[in-house]
This record gives sequence, C-alpha cells and structure tokens, in this order.
Amino acid sequence: MMDFSDYFPVWDQLTPAQQMRLSGSLSERTAKKGSIIHNGGMECTGLLLVRSGQLRAYILSEAGREITLYRLFDRDICLFSASCMIHSLQFDITIEAEKDTEFWLIPPEVYKNIMEESAPVANYTNEIMASRFSEVMWLMEQILWKSLDKRVAAFLLEETSIEGTKQLKITHETIANHLGTHREVITRMLRYLQSEGMVKLSRGTVEILDEKKLEELQEL
Amino acid sequence: MMDFSDYFPVWDQLTPAQQMRLSGSLSERTAKKGSIIHNGGMECTGLLLVRSGQLRAYILSEAGREITLYRLFDRDICLFSASCMIHSLQFDITIEAEKDTEFWLIPPEVYKNIMEESAPVANYTNEIMASRFSEVMWLMEQILWKSLDKRVAAFLLEETSIEGTKQLKITHETIANHLGTHREVITRMLRYLQSEGMVKLSRGTVEILDEKKLEELQEL
Repeated sequence: MMDFSDYFPVWDQLTPAQQMRLSGSLSERTAKKGSIIHNGGMECTGLLLVRSGQLRAYILSEAGREITLYRLFDRDICLFSASCMIHSLQFDITIEAEKDTEFWLIPPEVYKNIMEESAPVANYTNEIMASRFSEVMWLMEQILWKSLDKRVAAFLLEETSIEGTKQLKITHETIANHLGTHREVITRMLRYLQSEGMVKLSRGTVEILDEKKLEELQEL
Repeated sequence: MMDFSDYFPVWDQLTPAQQMRLSGSLSERTAKKGSIIHNGGMECTGLLLVRSGQLRAYILSEAGREITLYRLFDRDICLFSASCMIHSLQFDITIEAEKDTEFWLIPPEVYKNIMEESAPVANYTNEIMASRFSEVMWLMEQILWKSLDKRVAAFLLEETSIEGTKQLKITHETIANHLGTHREVITRMLRYLQSEGMVKLSRGTVEILDEKKLEELQEL
C-alpha cells in the first residue's frame, strides 16, 4: 500500500484509522485499451485513481452520439463513477480506457464515510469536482461559441501532444465521437484542412503537416 | 442573525466560534431587478445566499452572446461568485438580479477558512457544486442533442411555472439570451409555434395558449 499513499494527495492528512479503512478496502485493477470501466446509468462503480494509462469520460445521446468531456491521466481521480456518493450528482457519464490502464478502485461507501468526517478529504473532493466542472465549462463554451474547424484543430493539437507524435492513428468516426458530431462532417472538415496543407490523410491516419497553421486556426 | 441561521442549512453543525465568525462578517444586501451583482472576470465578490427574489447565472461570449446556466431562488446559495475560494474553479459567470432580490453576502476568505476546518461545511459545499454541475450537464445535453424548438418549448413552460402566469412579459431578445442564440432565430421559432396554435405573440408578450401541446413538443 506504500504505493497508493504516494498517489493519494491527502493521505498524510488522514488519521491512522482512516488510512487503514481506506487501504483495507482498495482493489487494484487493470483495464485493456478500449474496454468500458463505468457505464453510466444506475451503477455506482466507485472512485477510480489512475496509476498509469489513460481514461476517457464521455456522455452518450439516446441516438448513440458521443462527446468527450475530459481525459484522466496518471494520478487523476474520477468522482463521477461514484455518483451515489454525492446526493446532488444527477448525471451519467461513461468511462472508457483509451490505453491499457492500471488503477485503484475505492468503494464509494468507504470514501463517502471518510469524506463525511474529514475536512481535508472533503475539500480535496471539492477541488477535484471544481476542476472537472471547469473542464466541462470550457467545453461548453467551445460548443456554443466556436466553429467546428477550430474545435477540430484544437483536438488534433491536443492528440499530438498526448501521443507525442504527429502521425495520429485515429479514425474519422473516433474524432466525431470526441467532438459530438457525425463522421461525415469530420471527413469534410479534414479534407478542407488537407487542402490547406495542414494535415495529410491516409487510411486510419491523420498526419499533422503544419502545426503552426493549425494553432493559428485554433486561436482565430 | 436569527434569520440567517434559518437559511444556512449547516448552521447547527458549526462550532460557536465559527457561528460568530460567520455572522460577524455577513452583510445584508439588496439588488434591483436588472442589476448585475457579480461580473465574471477577476472579481471575487463572495458567496451569495438568496433570502428572496431571483438571480440568473449566465456566461458571455466575446461577441456578447449570452446563455443562462441556472437560476437561484429563495435559500439557494451561489459559490461561483466566490471562485477565488476554490483553487481549481477556472471559469467566469455573471450574476444578474431577475427580480428585486434580498441576499446575504459572505466574504470568501471567511467561508474558505471555515470550510477548511469544518467537514460539514466542506461536504455541504460539495453538494451545492454537484447540484450546479448537474444543471450545467443537463443544459449541455440539451444544447448537444435537442433541437431548438424543444428548447424554446421547455423554456416557455419553465417561465410559466416560475412566473405563475401564461402571459409572459418577455422579449425575443431576452429569450435568445437565455438560450444562447440570436433574436432572429427566436422570432422565427415563436412564429412557428404561433402558427401551430401553441402561443400568441404581441408586443413584449408571449401568451401560452396550449400548454399540453408545448409539453408534447418538448418531450418528443
């Protein structure tokens, strides 16, 4: 459990009894790339603390359209897979492993219990929620006020930075699911970016040719 | 201060010292209908606890377009006018009085201080944030997956319920600002609803003629 204590930021502010309760209830899990870890609805899976890998949180429409809300990386924690923990949390998200991921699962009733008696844990939880809220507000502003060409440019630049390569192995369908739109719309937009010399398209790959021009488009 | 203690749900869970600190720092304020109480940006106005009246929280685009995030009524508390209090809160909202409003203003540093030492206050703050987060997620789903006719229908029904009348004194511009769109688009949509017999338009007024049909449209 040495390890978990390094990853959980307020560990040192727990009482010895709380530390024991938490470490005694944890489980270590792994998820293969592409697998669904939490599936919205009524489930209360628990809190996820990412040890390594990458998770994606998204919402689904009734018609099956998706939009990515945020990503979780090493040391990030996910509250919304344990929404039963906070009474006023009334929305459903789905969590998918975007890469092979190792994480700890904290049972919701254990975390809730500790949060109710510990001001540091409650305030830490507050900070996490505020941080996700800020990401969702940023996304909402993008959807409301930004045109799709800028959003595609921003997404491609973010992927380049996450993956550390300009050769993105990604389908048009996947990009559409991230941005909450249809594949046809993304294909049209990528072809436009290709005609402007910013990207090069080939089967299953988007290559970034002109990062600077994409950045300019994004900031326009 | 008897009064404030009735409105602040976790008052009884504060220590006497915390109660004194809080009640000693409060101020009672009033805001006229139409006035701006908190103006985004760098300001850290403080927490607002509504005694009576109605507030509207919205965001603004650079081009001056608005969209309503949520409303606050009697006994509601607003955290985001005190975003300096929570480090990870990185977005700006504007708060306007939609009706003449009486409220208490809690200085952010006093609240922050108490929240850091009190688990009940921190957990209460968590619940408030979760509740606003849920409202914003609902709104995002509306924007993403629902067509504008359904959103206008839902808005008119909500107004009817808030105002307790079917004669809504509201301009097309105001409806556009609530829904994040342009006046022309709203005018066109209202004319369509009028041609379907659901509303009747006259200068500065939208009268609801067929509530049942609006409800059906909203739920379609």
